[in-house]
Parts: sequence; C-alpha cells; structure tokens
Amino acid sequence: MTRTLIENGVVLTMNPAGDIHEDGCVLVEDSRLAYVGPRGGLPRELDARREDAAGRVVMPGLVNCHTHLCMIFGRTLATNTDLLSWLDLQMPVMRALDAEAMLAAQTLGCVENLKNGNTTLVENLFAPRSDTVSPEDCAFAAMERTGIRGTVARAFEALRFDPAFVETPAQQAERVRALHARWHGSAGGRLRLSFGPLLPWTLDESMLRASRALAGELGLCLHMHVAESAEFNRIIERHYGRPVRNVELLHETGCLGPDVQAVGVSDLSPREVALLAETGTSVILDPQTRLFWGTGFPPLAPFLDAGITCGLATNGPAANCGQDLFESMKYACATAKTAAGDPRVLDARRALRMATVEGARALGLDGQVGSLETGKQADLITIDLRQPHLVPAFDLEAALVFSARGSDVRDAMVDGQWLMRDRCLTRIDEPALLARAETLAERSLERAHVRRGHHRTLKGTP
Amino acid sequence: MTRTLIENGVVLTMNPAGDIHEDGCVLVEDSRLAYVGPRGGLPRELDARREDAAGRVVMPGLVNCHTHLCMIFGRTLATNTDLLSWLDLQMPVMRALDAEAMLAAQTLGCVENLKNGNTTLVENLFAPRSDTVSPEDCAFAAMERTGIRGTVARAFEALRFDPAFVETPAQQAERVRALHARWHGSAGGRLRLSFGPLLPWTLDESMLRASRALAGELGLCLHMHVAESAEFNRIIERHYGRPVRNVELLHETGCLGPDVQAVGVSDLSPREVALLAETGTSVILDPQTRLFWGTGFPPLAPFLDAGITCGLATNGPAANCGQDLFESMKYACATAKTAAGDPRVLDARRALRMATVEGARALGLDGQVGSLETGKQADLITIDLRQPHLVPAFDLEAALVFSARGSDVRDAMVDGQWLMRDRCLTRIDEPALLARAETLAERSLERAHVRRGHHRTLKGTP
Repeated sequence: MTRTLIENGVVLTMNPAGDIHEDGCVLVEDSRLAYVGPRGGLPRELDARREDAAGRVVMPGLVNCHTHLCMIFGRTLATNTDLLSWLDLQMPVMRALDAEAMLAAQTLGCVENLKNGNTTLVENLFAPRSDTVSPEDCAFAAMERTGIRGTVARAFEALRFDPAFVETPAQQAERVRALHARWHGSAGGRLRLSFGPLLPWTLDESMLRASRALAGELGLCLHMHVAESAEFNRIIERHYGRPVRNVELLHETGCLGPDVQAVGVSDLSPREVALLAETGTSVILDPQTRLFWGTGFPPLAPFLDAGITCGLATNGPAANCGQDLFESMKYACATAKTAAGDPRVLDARRALRMATVEGARALGLDGQVGSLETGKQADLITIDLRQPHLVPAFDLEAALVFSARGSDVRDAMVDGQWLMRDRCLTRIDEPALLARAETLAERSLERAHVRRGHHRTLKGTP
Repeated sequence: MTRTLIENGVVLTMNPAGDIHEDGCVLVEDSRLAYVGPRGGLPRELDARREDAAGRVVMPGLVNCHTHLCMIFGRTLATNTDLLSWLDLQMPVMRALDAEAMLAAQTLGCVENLKNGNTTLVENLFAPRSDTVSPEDCAFAAMERTGIRGTVARAFEALRFDPAFVETPAQQAERVRALHARWHGSAGGRLRLSFGPLLPWTLDESMLRASRALAGELGLCLHMHVAESAEFNRIIERHYGRPVRNVELLHETGCLGPDVQAVGVSDLSPREVALLAETGTSVILDPQTRLFWGTGFPPLAPFLDAGITCGLATNGPAANCGQDLFESMKYACATAKTAAGDPRVLDARRALRMATVEGARALGLDGQVGSLETGKQADLITIDLRQPHLVPAFDLEAALVFSARGSDVRDAMVDGQWLMRDRCLTRIDEPALLARAETLAERSLERAHVRRGHHRTLKGTP
C-alpha cells in the first residue's frame, strides 16, 4: 500500500457540512482518501510519505462537465460571429484532423484541463466518419495517457447536418456498443462512455427514442446540447413541423432523467424548467460561452429555485476560448446576478459546489469524486494562496471564486497519482507536446483551406 | 546611455497601422524606445544588452484606467450585496488603516497590477480625514517605490457622505495644491495627480464648478464616477431637487471635456452619450464590476458608435475582485456582444486598443505610452505563448483577449527599467510584503469591528 499524507494546508472539503480545516490533513492510501480532517484525528505514528501544503488550499479537483477538445485547433478562429456561422468555420478544421492530429488535440486539451485544476472532464466528441481515424479511441487514449478522469460523450448526428458527420442509428448503436466494450469503466473506472444527439434537430423522434433505449440498456448517460439559444427552438419547430420546444420534445421521447445532462439551456420556458426538475435531469452551464456569442444569459436563478442539479463547464476551447473553470465560476455568479438583477442570487459557496460536488452529481460521479471525504477517490488539487491577488482572503470561498484562476493551481492528483507537481506535468513532455500540436494545427488549417483573413500566425506570413 | 535590445519575439506594436512583427526587435535607450520593427531596420553592429524574447509576445504595458487600491484589504468581503451596501461595509475597513497599513495596501495593489501586466494605473483614492496619515503620500510613495506609472486621482466628498471622509472645497483646494507641488510630474514624469468628485451627489453645483476651475488652473484631469447605476440618477434627482441626469449636470457645470474621465457609465440616455462625444470626454469601462453587483451592462456599442474614447479598468480589488485587465478585455467583449445581441460589435483588436493606446489617450498619456513606437517611453510587457491555453494562436489578438490572463505576463518594464523578470519583482521582496500585508489586513479588520459572519480567515478561528 502507498500512503501519502498531505499536511499543513487549508483543506476545503466540499463535504455536505462545508467543513474547512485550517491546518488540515489529507491521507491518501493508493487511489483513495483514507482520512480528511484535523491533525488530531490521525494516529501519531503514521508510515506515510509527507507532502507539505503550507500556504496552500487542498481541495477537490474541479469537474468540467462539458467541452469539445476535438475543436482545440480552431481556437482563436471566428471569435466574432454567431454560433452557427462559427460552427461552419470550425467544422472544416475538424474534418482535416488525421489520427495523429486528433490524438494531439485531445492530449493538448487534457493537459490544458489539468493545468487549470480540472481533474474530471466530459469530452463531447463529434467528428467526421473515417476509415482511418477513430476519434473516440484517440480521446480515450489521451485521457488514459494524461491520467485525467474522463467521459467521452460521443455526439450523434443522423439527419440535416454536414454529410461527412452523420451516421445511421444502426451505425451509432454498433459504435457505442464497441466503445462500451473497449473503454467504459477501464483504467480502474477512470474512463467512461456516454452519448447523445449533438443538436436536437439532427434527429427525429424515433432516433431520440432509440438513443434512450440504448443508453438504458448499456447503463450510459445521455449528454446533449439543449436550448442553447432562441434560434435552437425556432429550428426545432421548423424541422419537427409543430410548435414543440426542445425540453418538451426530450420529455415526449423519454430523454429526460437523472442520467441525463442538458448542456447550455439558455432559452427555456418555465414549463421546461419544471420538466427538468420533475425528471431529475441535470443542467450543465457554460456562462462565458453564451456571452461570447452574445446569446444572453442562462436562467440560472430559476434552476436554483427549482432544485435542479447544476454542473459547470468551460465548453470547448474554440468557443470561449479556454478551459478555466475558475473563470466559469466567476461568470456564473456575474451572469446569475445580472440576469436576476439581484447580487444575492448566487454566492461563491454554491458556485464552488457547482464546479466540484454538484458537477460530479450531474455526471453520476458524486459517489467517487467532487469532495474530499473518506472512501472517495483521491482526486485533488492544491492552490497557492501566497500571491498578490489572493491576499487577503478573509472569505476563502469568495477568494477562490472571485480572485483565483486556473494558473494558481500548483498540483493535481487523480486516483492517488500526482499528474502535476508545482505546475510541471509528471507524465507528459509539455514543450514537445506544444511544439508538435502547433505544427499539426497549422497543417490542419492548411488542409481545411480556412481563409485566414485578418488572422496572424506566429510563424510565416500574416 | 543604457541600451537594451529585446529580440526574437513577436512584437505587437499597437501603433495606428496595427503592425505586428513576427521576428521583431525593440531597442530601448535609457527610458525610451529607440527602435521598434523588423531586425533589418537595425544596424548590424549594435552595442546593446540583448534579451531573448523567443516564444513571447512583446507588447505595450496595459493601462488600468481606474482602481481603488486603498480598498484592497476589503477583498472578498461582502461579495454578494449591492453597490451601496457593499460600500457601507468597506468604509470601516478603510477608516481603520493607519499609515503603515495604507502604504502596504497601496504597495500590494501596485504589485498586483504589475504582476498582471498593468504598467500604468489610476488610483482613485478616497480615505478619511486624518492628522496622522496622508493617504495620497502613501499612494505616491508606493508607486515611486514599485516603479509603476501612476496617477493618484483623489476623490472629493463635500456633502452627504460619511462625515469622516468629507472635506470643504477650501480643504480640497489646499490639499490638491500641496500634492500638485509635491508629486505631479515627479519621478521623471511617471507620477501624476488628478482629482474629482467621488460620487456626484456628494457635491453641489458650486463645488462642481470650483473643481473644474481648480483642475483648469493646475492643468490636472478630472476623474469621476458617472452614472454607475440607475440608482445613481435617482439619488441625483433627489439631492439636486430636479430631474437632471448625471452627465447633464456635469455638462451644466463645465465638468466635461477631453481632460475628463467618466468611470462606470452604465445608465446613460442617448442625449448623455451625445454630450460625452461632443465634449470629447472619455469613458472608462469596468464591465466585470457591473456584473459583480448585478447592475447590468454599460452601453458599450453606443460609445463605440459615437466615437468616444474608451479606456478599460479593473476597478478596485474589493469590487471585482482582482486587477487583471485581460479579464476586463474579455468581459468587455462579452458584455458588449450580449448587450447588443450581436457578436460582431466589439472585436479583440479594439478591446486590446482600449486596454493600451486608447486607455492612454483617455488619460492624456498617449504621447508617452500605450503603444510601442519610437520616441515613446519604454513601458512594455512580455507574454509567454508556449502554454497549453495559448496553442494554437492563429489570431494573436484574439488569443491575447480571449485566452491569455494576467498570470501569463512574464516581464514588465517601465521607463526602460525591468520591474518584473520571469514573474519575479526586481524592486520588492514579495513574500515579505505579502506576509506583512496579511497581518495588517487582519489588524484593520479587527479595528473596524467588521463582523465576519460566514467569513473564514486563513489563520485563527472561522
């Protein structure tokens, strides 16, 4: 058995009581937490490797409930346009990714998440059909190799989408079954599979029902973009030929429930909010992405009032344009306050819970991660408080939400393994990865014939 | 003469042509820029100390047009309440600052600005009357000692405010004249003085006219909070006893013009926007602070349409709760897009100009700083591009606005002097400053008898 005692830090447990231990200890035994609390609760003689966390917060790793790492090479492209036009520009870049580029993109994305303190992520993967690339295998391989805890939520497009990206329900079922057998629960349970429609109008009712049945059969979650903008609901009405709203459509077809994550959710009626609450469906909020496209605010206060489980997300690095969940926490508070016209509507404590234990609950992972409690997996981060922007920090939770940023994370551990020590990755040669990723990104952009316009590269001609 | 050649970096000039030199050179001679451009423009033999900026952006230091470093010890307090209730809680903390605490607070604030790449700042200082503390001298001393370029904009309260903070117009005139003589233009022109009403209803018309006359006589700028929320305009109507709006009042009393900075400006009528444009008044935008209090959006698109000079600011560290102008750039784009419902309304290039050369223009400093051009003062920063969240960066300006953050700044130079090298301050013992500031902040909180409620300190009891 390997034992590590992390001592002398401020331990923010995120347990139900909200305990914070000023001079706290965290004992890790192999991949699990064996003790979390004050020093007095430990035996005096303890055979453990000691890690000094003086001046640091020790807290659960953050849970990034939705991203698209497959789009990371599109970062900084089309930052000034609407969601669907932006997507039109991003898709050729994704189409240009070969297996090496997809693996590099996913690895770079996992690394960016780890360096921001996100120890768990959901990669909502959509990619063109290919005989030579398995994008899901690349994504899982990147998660396995970087050590991050991850779910690949493969996106399903079956109608009315770029033909290169669509597949039949039979193809989806075949691939989901194969991936389930190969990856779901692997790496000691660290890797998981889920799936769901990328965009609701790319399926019809029968396909929604088929997705629900398959998810139920295999015990997988459904992970879907829902009502991201008012335009979403207009497109659904047009394609389904009746005035049905997005959440109503999902309810009709059985696609709501405690195993479902609805992402984006910025244009919902009160009835739709009630449906989400009644069915125990979770929502995943990515507030800075909404502002990035100018599509407004998610109605966060109604979700909180209705008792809906709310996870937080960065969304993809091409959309907002990073993977910093500290930023998402701050944007969540800012937009919730502004939408409600009430600065009391979302406080730092709740935002922190959304980024940790509530996000884990949204993914069905709260039995394993999201808080520092005995018996859970040892997924944790440390944050350096001895910095000018974090002094003073009378209210620790407010300091973390309103003043800290991903770059303040010094160490990250998943399943008891240090993946980052003092901002250095333990498993990945970061300079080599960055150099190779930049080369592959440039090659993909050239292959995609994306007009650079005003874009400037770091190398070569403007 | 001391010559430094910064070479091999990507030089983002922010000059009128928007030039970016991929393998650019910046030649610093003493405190000024002697050359900015491609290597070919330099003589082959050059006697200069060489600095390698490979993998980095070299760009103008950022201009933080409005902050309240005097409030830094109130960081994380009352993060969930409205502007005026928040102020009621913050003021006792400021009242508890002795000279040592005020100097430490200002020094900590200057250091936080430098570490985020802000080489110029405006400290809008308001503090209680005191026989033992000169808060302005503390602020200037902190700027002098840290090396930052700074303006102290002392706030004037003459009526209807906390009695400990008010002064008569005669007292204001006497103090402004003394500070002008002592500090304005000192440190080789690096330090400047300005002043203005803290809140418009704390003065009457005659006092506004007197402030204008004094500013004109001494050649100082007026720096004022203007129309920060709808409540501001209601309070003005009540106190002035007529339906006059904030900008109209300033116009009547002569307090608009090219030497005036209007800060906040989130509740303006179209006529008020036109008045600002006609008089050449600049606005200073602090978008994240508006969202922090839930008071909505500044009408940024109308300012841009009207051709008004727009500077960016973080506002005080107790309000938003940091000094990261990269965050302000991103929030400015996000809120401008969302307020207009149009993702095209503010692009990265304009946001970068607002944080550099346009901000400098708002402060009347664009002849000296804000862009890298021959003859200007050598105020510059470098940013490390070899990081997971900045790869790829096809559009460099978008990468800086949407993906970079203050912690990516590696080096900062003011007047040709390196103030930060590879994130280490050259003039300040940072650990000692942080430890002392924390102690003084705790002492101030105790003296102020601020109830901690749910607040948790890092030391001592919750």
